[in-house]
Amino acid sequence: MANHKMIIRYDGTNYSGWQKQGNTTNTIQGKIEFHIGDLLGEAVEVHGSGRTDAGVHAKFQVANFFTNKLIERDSFLLALNERLPKDISITKLETATERFHARLNATSKTYVYYIDNAKIADPFRRKYSLHIGTPLNIDAMQSAAALLVGEHDFKSFCGNKHMKKSTVRTIHSINISKDESDLISIEYKGNGFLYNMARILTGTLINVGIKKIPVSDITKILEGKNRKLAGPTAFPHGLFLENVEYTKVSTF
Amino acid sequence: MANHKMIIRYDGTNYSGWQKQGNTTNTIQGKIEFHIGDLLGEAVEVHGSGRTDAGVHAKFQVANFFTNKLIERDSFLLALNERLPKDISITKLETATERFHARLNATSKTYVYYIDNAKIADPFRRKYSLHIGTPLNIDAMQSAAALLVGEHDFKSFCGNKHMKKSTVRTIHSINISKDESDLISIEYKGNGFLYNMARILTGTLINVGIKKIPVSDITKILEGKNRKLAGPTAFPHGLFLENVEYTKVSTF
Repeated sequence: MANHKMIIRYDGTNYSGWQKQGNTTNTIQGKIEFHIGDLLGEAVEVHGSGRTDAGVHAKFQVANFFTNKLIERDSFLLALNERLPKDISITKLETATERFHARLNATSKTYVYYIDNAKIADPFRRKYSLHIGTPLNIDAMQSAAALLVGEHDFKSFCGNKHMKKSTVRTIHSINISKDESDLISIEYKGNGFLYNMARILTGTLINVGIKKIPVSDITKILEGKNRKLAGPTAFPHGLFLENVEYTKVSTF
Repeated sequence: MANHKMIIRYDGTNYSGWQKQGNTTNTIQGKIEFHIGDLLGEAVEVHGSGRTDAGVHAKFQVANFFTNKLIERDSFLLALNERLPKDISITKLETATERFHARLNATSKTYVYYIDNAKIADPFRRKYSLHIGTPLNIDAMQSAAALLVGEHDFKSFCGNKHMKKSTVRTIHSINISKDESDLISIEYKGNGFLYNMARILTGTLINVGIKKIPVSDITKILEGKNRKLAGPTAFPHGLFLENVEYTKVSTF
């Protein structure tokens, strides 16, 4: 059985997220599994590095699948992209070691949330950023972000009410910047993200940016371990899975 | 009668172009006229700097309209953007001199055509660039472009078969560049563009880039004054109206 690793890039606008759900094929995983299976003449299971919510995009998602069929990499990649809808591209296909697993071996992930903070929304960003016409206080957001970095119990930032496993995660860094066109990017790098976590962190930081939540409340929100204390779940269309990191040894 | 000048930015994907056509309101001009009229309670005519074809985008289109009604600029702009569909934004509204006319006073225009020249198409560029998976020969395209710059009869590059007026135009510059992500941009600056001209120029330069048209043929194509000699009309979705230039004196 050869193990194949893929890098995937997708515009999530028209999908119900990464993960296959029952019979619905309107998911990224579903589309990719269908077309690989169709090309190989054999069903495959595609393991992603993790789920992305409905409407969330990915510039760099990683997945792997096993098959006994011989794959001529270049022509297979071309044929697969030819068949996939235009909002999903497989940008790379490589042979991985048998032990490589896109989810289990991932050591960290990077998400970026984009906010169009210009007074007048940019039509070309409308599907890839959240428009907030009022200028956000970036300094306050950065101070709040600093309190979120590190190992914490992120229960207050978890969208799954019935989460039974540990909600402790480590955020390595949160970088917030604003470019000359008033596009704000909030980059989160962490060892793992709970359900909706990047979006709830964003909703909370936005509330800090509009002074609805004082910076000093962040510690209380973390300590409270209660979803109701944090800000709202920011809309999915501003969020991008930007990268998935592996230790070199686990990939090959 | 006060004369109002607007800067407009639009994603042309879902429109039948700039220009109002009979009863159809699925045009940029139609949408803007409708909402301004609705807000003012009086019909207005919006004069654009020129038409853009169905599916062509604009980062900077200029238009003007006259009204007797008093306009409180900031709140009017906010209300207008609130009502317009999200793929059209009015980014600026200013009072112009009575003599200002967006089309008649324009001295030159800049169009940019984007080509995604990466082997695998980028899902996020699919609506804003033409994907060509084969690497184009930029040097050859630049040599061909140099032959197109200047004052010429562009009849071979005019999509209107029944054009009775002069087809002589001046192209001030054509700049072709390719960035590290293999996005090619072809920037055309000229004193005026015939129907489909930017797209036919692009189709011709692409054919030069894939060696279907030798550079030396460009002069023959110009001299032949026959649409059939030039390349195809490139798809509209890669084209952006990037700027409209005026002499300072004409604007205010």
